[in-house]
Amino acid sequence: MSAPCHCKHSDDGASNGNALNVLSPELQQEFKDSNHPANLICELCRLFYDNNWVTGTGGGISIRDVDGENPNLVYIAPSGVQKERIQPWEMFLVELPDEKILRTPNDIPKELTKSYKYKPSACTPLFMSCYTMRDAGACIHTHSQHAVMTTLLYENEKEFTISHIEQIKALPKLQYNEQTKKVEKLVIPIIENTPHEEDLTDSLQEAIKNYPGTSAVLVRRHGIYVWGETVWKAKVYNEALDYLLELAVKMKLAGIPLVKEDS
Amino acid sequence: MSAPCHCKHSDDGASNGNALNVLSPELQQEFKDSNHPANLICELCRLFYDNNWVTGTGGGISIRDVDGENPNLVYIAPSGVQKERIQPWEMFLVELPDEKILRTPNDIPKELTKSYKYKPSACTPLFMSCYTMRDAGACIHTHSQHAVMTTLLYENEKEFTISHIEQIKALPKLQYNEQTKKVEKLVIPIIENTPHEEDLTDSLQEAIKNYPGTSAVLVRRHGIYVWGETVWKAKVYNEALDYLLELAVKMKLAGIPLVKEDS
Amino acid sequence: MSAPCHCKHSDDGASNGNALNVLSPELQQEFKDSNHPANLICELCRLFYDNNWVTGTGGGISIRDVDGENPNLVYIAPSGVQKERIQPWEMFLVELPDEKILRTPNDIPKELTKSYKYKPSACTPLFMSCYTMRDAGACIHTHSQHAVMTTLLYENEKEFTISHIEQIKALPKLQYNEQTKKVEKLVIPIIENTPHEEDLTDSLQEAIKNYPGTSAVLVRRHGIYVWGETVWKAKVYNEALDYLLELAVKMKLAGIPLVKEDS
Amino acid sequence: MSAPCHCKHSDDGASNGNALNVLSPELQQEFKDSNHPANLICELCRLFYDNNWVTGTGGGISIRDVDGENPNLVYIAPSGVQKERIQPWEMFLVELPDEKILRTPNDIPKELTKSYKYKPSACTPLFMSCYTMRDAGACIHTHSQHAVMTTLLYENEKEFTISHIEQIKALPKLQYNEQTKKVEKLVIPIIENTPHEEDLTDSLQEAIKNYPGTSAVLVRRHGIYVWGETVWKAKVYNEALDYLLELAVKMKLAGIPLVKEDS
Repeated sequence: MSAPCHCKHSDDGASNGNALNVLSPELQQEFKDSNHPANLICELCRLFYDNNWVTGTGGGISIRDVDGENPNLVYIAPSGVQKERIQPWEMFLVELPDEKILRTPNDIPKELTKSYKYKPSACTPLFMSCYTMRDAGACIHTHSQHAVMTTLLYENEKEFTISHIEQIKALPKLQYNEQTKKVEKLVIPIIENTPHEEDLTDSLQEAIKNYPGTSAVLVRRHGIYVWGETVWKAKVYNEALDYLLELAVKMKLAGIPLVKEDS
Repeated sequence: MSAPCHCKHSDDGASNGNALNVLSPELQQEFKDSNHPANLICELCRLFYDNNWVTGTGGGISIRDVDGENPNLVYIAPSGVQKERIQPWEMFLVELPDEKILRTPNDIPKELTKSYKYKPSACTPLFMSCYTMRDAGACIHTHSQHAVMTTLLYENEKEFTISHIEQIKALPKLQYNEQTKKVEKLVIPIIENTPHEEDLTDSLQEAIKNYPGTSAVLVRRHGIYVWGETVWKAKVYNEALDYLLELAVKMKLAGIPLVKEDS
Repeated sequence: MSAPCHCKHSDDGASNGNALNVLSPELQQEFKDSNHPANLICELCRLFYDNNWVTGTGGGISIRDVDGENPNLVYIAPSGVQKERIQPWEMFLVELPDEKILRTPNDIPKELTKSYKYKPSACTPLFMSCYTMRDAGACIHTHSQHAVMTTLLYENEKEFTISHIEQIKALPKLQYNEQTKKVEKLVIPIIENTPHEEDLTDSLQEAIKNYPGTSAVLVRRHGIYVWGETVWKAKVYNEALDYLLELAVKMKLAGIPLVKEDS
Repeated sequence: MSAPCHCKHSDDGASNGNALNVLSPELQQEFKDSNHPANLICELCRLFYDNNWVTGTGGGISIRDVDGENPNLVYIAPSGVQKERIQPWEMFLVELPDEKILRTPNDIPKELTKSYKYKPSACTPLFMSCYTMRDAGACIHTHSQHAVMTTLLYENEKEFTISHIEQIKALPKLQYNEQTKKVEKLVIPIIENTPHEEDLTDSLQEAIKNYPGTSAVLVRRHGIYVWGETVWKAKVYNEALDYLLELAVKMKLAGIPLVKEDS
């Protein structure tokens, strides 16, 4: 984990100095706001990189502009690039529900993109599933080793289940049951990996349907998809889940059951 | 661990640039001091986040203004927010012994808080117990995985005990016994977790009473509470304890007893 | 992992302030470009140091100026120095194919080098093998503990093999086989260590010949060599490989086979 | 590990802005040099803190001014303070061979020290042993968990021995034996811990005498002392040793012998 730099001068870090000059005045204005979705994607990718979640071009993030004028606008990081080094002008911008492409980094002046031919993240159909089926505000995909190890240690399970750990309470829809006096256990579905990322779409959608309370889907030997109502909720859920997956691996290897029977 | 940035310009990091302008002149003046309790809470939360102690909105910290004009003033971080991103004006300020609320972040101009409805940390009654029963100057609560794993590896124990490790000496009230020529062993009580954080108060207070020499209480499957005479002592005790808990987990898994019989 | 600082002022970090003044105007001009190979070596060595890949003067990196006017120019870090503290003027510059030395840090004003007698990295003949046999654009050598542990856990194997992990797809030449509907498994040759680093050259070259699809060679009890068409591809391959080696160690210790039989 | 910040403005990080104004002009001038021993102690303590080597006030470092006008001057960090937050004016300055105290932080204006009563590091007699018996230029003491775990995993051994790992070559006095065609194995003595740190002096001195080729002494259940001809060599040796101790713990737990018989 790595907290954001709070130096005064980092406020304009996302604007990347003079590089902005070749952009249109409209884009220059947009990217001055450090809370702009395109800037937040850059900031969070750097954080995720420091956590070993998106190294080697793996993983990604997409944000829907839920607080903006048009909450149907969705920002998507490009495919196959170093996530910790992407810049705000490298995002694809699409509009729901038709996924019409409004802006691509291939339109950006070549000084800033060095003629690289961009494609939207291979996760795009998976991100879209979270937006349309769950009205999510953001969706995060990581290659977290804790996620991968959990799916390997429970190779024959179709669900990851854990109970009686305080951190579970950071996740939504786990209400305290007044009758049983219990906080319900956390259950995250596990789907099988496929040779091409886009082929995960069907099984992800099925898992989302079958697990109406979940905010995440694990992909065996691959990683995890996590979403939330806003980018900050998605980030918090992902952190809490990764904490639990890290703990679960340690517990399993130490022979401690992940689900505790109530006494 | 992550040492503070010592760049010159980071001195005013806590002041967060122009954001302060909408605050009252009194608050602006207060928050210019990087050693102000509200700023220290922000700085330490960023450090704790980097250590995986307060991710996913978990954990927290409270500081009593022991060096200020009124040592009964207590600063408390809000509940359910990202700890590494809190700002000095988001703190609750209460006065002991009645816990009268003097200031809440809900009074701060909406530009800075985005109409978020703040509540004081759920740990508040636990922090207050440390102030009133131990005259503490600060209280830290983390979800450290080393703390959680220790309580899981010693599931049937009511105490964590370790001896003959140099780092123990960083903790208070462990005097060298001239007669036995021994430094006494470290004992930290473990209490059971509860569905609601505030319900921990009774058992925490009982542990504080029963263990007059302790500076910390472990909460099973949850984390740890640590306090000290000042914020810096609380920080040092928490670091030393976390070091020992990390080592204890490694020792237990390697089959090495935590308490060494003297030869 | 540690993402690069994106503060505006870090753009000129590589130029190191007034230190440049004693250099020739030509060198001053060169080193102002943060994408100059000599600056990239410095930036990446700091990143690699944070990953425990080049501590204690171990490891190294070399970049060929594939995007420059003369793509035969090769920059090489010096031997035996702290990799996270090297400066752009401390590089050796040689020209392929004769490896003619065009510039050495021993020609730099003593104010900047303190009369240290530099030698090119002991890895030089190994880096040259990657340039000449594979037309590489950069070559990275680390002492990664994951690499060393993998070669120790598979002490009698001459290859590291892993399959069915998503991150494998970040590596080149692993095509999806339409007939078998499989992504082929990743195979990296392991060569034995030698008392002197330069004596690895023969066995590295043999491995490069015998494994035409590989982008890396593991050296038992020592580390790994990774190359790519450009510095950024070499970096990405090295990250993806290190991720897989880290995971492989965990899998092996947990008793999970690295190669999964297809069902 | 954490590479130093190479932002331009960090050059004057050690000078700590206006704080210097209350110091004498001579001290102000001294502390402007980022390579001054007092500033290097601060920089390295922040690095060591990030590595979990000196948390909780543990560990320390001392530098002899081998490149200065008087190479008998020795700078020593104070005892019991947070190592990552010390400032250059908090050092003790003594002169060898009599260890005459030339300067103490207790003479520094109270604005900068807040009337804290400083004592020299409890490691002082141990540091002095390295200076007088080995003509060291710097001495580092850490509470590294890898060092502690190694002494616990080899509880009955009086030496830590490892062979056939490349990183060993970063340490001095391990010459390649032309006859046996071997690089000799690394041997570091282990001494037993004592209730008071200064009581380690006799056994440390005995170990230094008995192991003329060593650059370090392990202290069981405590940590390690490492020295070198200069501060940078001591730093490099300490990094290389910690790398080897980290690897040794992993090897031991995986059942891999630390010493390989030559085939």
